[in-house]
Amino acid sequence: MTYTSKILEEAITAVSSLPSIGKKSALRLVLHLINDDSDKAEKLIKAIHALKHELQECPKCHNYTDTGLCAICDSVTRDKSTLCVIESVRDLMAIEETGQFKGLFHIIGGVISPIDGIGPSDLNIDDLVDRVRNEDVKEVIMAISPTIEGETTIYYMTKKLKPLGVTVSTIARGVSFGGDLEYADELTLGRSIVSRIPYTI
Amino acid sequence: MTYTSKILEEAITAVSSLPSIGKKSALRLVLHLINDDSDKAEKLIKAIHALKHELQECPKCHNYTDTGLCAICDSVTRDKSTLCVIESVRDLMAIEETGQFKGLFHIIGGVISPIDGIGPSDLNIDDLVDRVRNEDVKEVIMAISPTIEGETTIYYMTKKLKPLGVTVSTIARGVSFGGDLEYADELTLGRSIVSRIPYTI
Repeated sequence: MTYTSKILEEAITAVSSLPSIGKKSALRLVLHLINDDSDKAEKLIKAIHALKHELQECPKCHNYTDTGLCAICDSVTRDKSTLCVIESVRDLMAIEETGQFKGLFHIIGGVISPIDGIGPSDLNIDDLVDRVRNEDVKEVIMAISPTIEGETTIYYMTKKLKPLGVTVSTIARGVSFGGDLEYADELTLGRSIVSRIPYTI
Repeated sequence: MTYTSKILEEAITAVSSLPSIGKKSALRLVLHLINDDSDKAEKLIKAIHALKHELQECPKCHNYTDTGLCAICDSVTRDKSTLCVIESVRDLMAIEETGQFKGLFHIIGGVISPIDGIGPSDLNIDDLVDRVRNEDVKEVIMAISPTIEGETTIYYMTKKLKPLGVTVSTIARGVSFGGDLEYADELTLGRSIVSRIPYTI
């Protein structure tokens, strides 16, 4: 694009450096900000600054927090005997959204992937083991991606956790609710037959 | 969505206040910024601040400029006898992109639209007339949206400009290059027949 203003050009470059925002979308967003009479731009500046300078990581579960323990670890109503192990904050939000889990979380930060140079020591696994050892945890639920790397990571963590006498489970895998059988991949479909559930009426 | 951090929540709210960015996209962008190790966030903050506090409007053509006249008005190589009248900066960029126009621009800022409460005095039409009167302008090209409101605006401006002895033209309207005749709307197709061009070989 041809720019007649360095300020405009730099703004479009900065906005289009974000994932999935191209030059044309960036231009649209930038022109919107210029023409907006509310305090949208100031709020955006403050919010981005706070993200980079104030947001902290929960020392226990690695969730994001404003200060100290995160709201979930700090809650008195959550079931402290059940720990759900997940890869990222997005997974935490997705599970919280279901309203089906009342325990605590532990974010390991990814999965073991030798190809990407990610080993067990790059993930928050050691302090997961410490938590299970020192806290009153009875069950660890592995809510990790059903991929080869995810399975490897679950296997590695289970090997470390089992000797501590804790129950380890994984979230159920099977065909999606509302999904069409013929479109389910064969691995998922095969596994859903092997792990079939007794049908009760 | 359920948030465990006020900072995170405010950032997602601020980002999703931008047009065509929903809560889920905002979360993705915010997490990207948090995890980014470069100076992307700082550049974004600086850029947005400059947009709102440093960016100026060219006193002549209303294009955005960093200081004083914009690069186009200030250029010595542009043809100062031809003025292209457009609605917005986006139109200016689109025309510059074609590389087919070497004159100057005048951004009126919209079109006359009584339904939206926009009258001639809300647009930069008076100073367009002043420019044509005081500068050495020979031709004014109307590059305004081919809508009812656009046509009204062109008619209004032409009425004001004609007495000054300047040539007024509009950009050609017709079927798009590469377009399929059967999909062209009837108004466009009808007009392209009325304004048919002699075919030379």
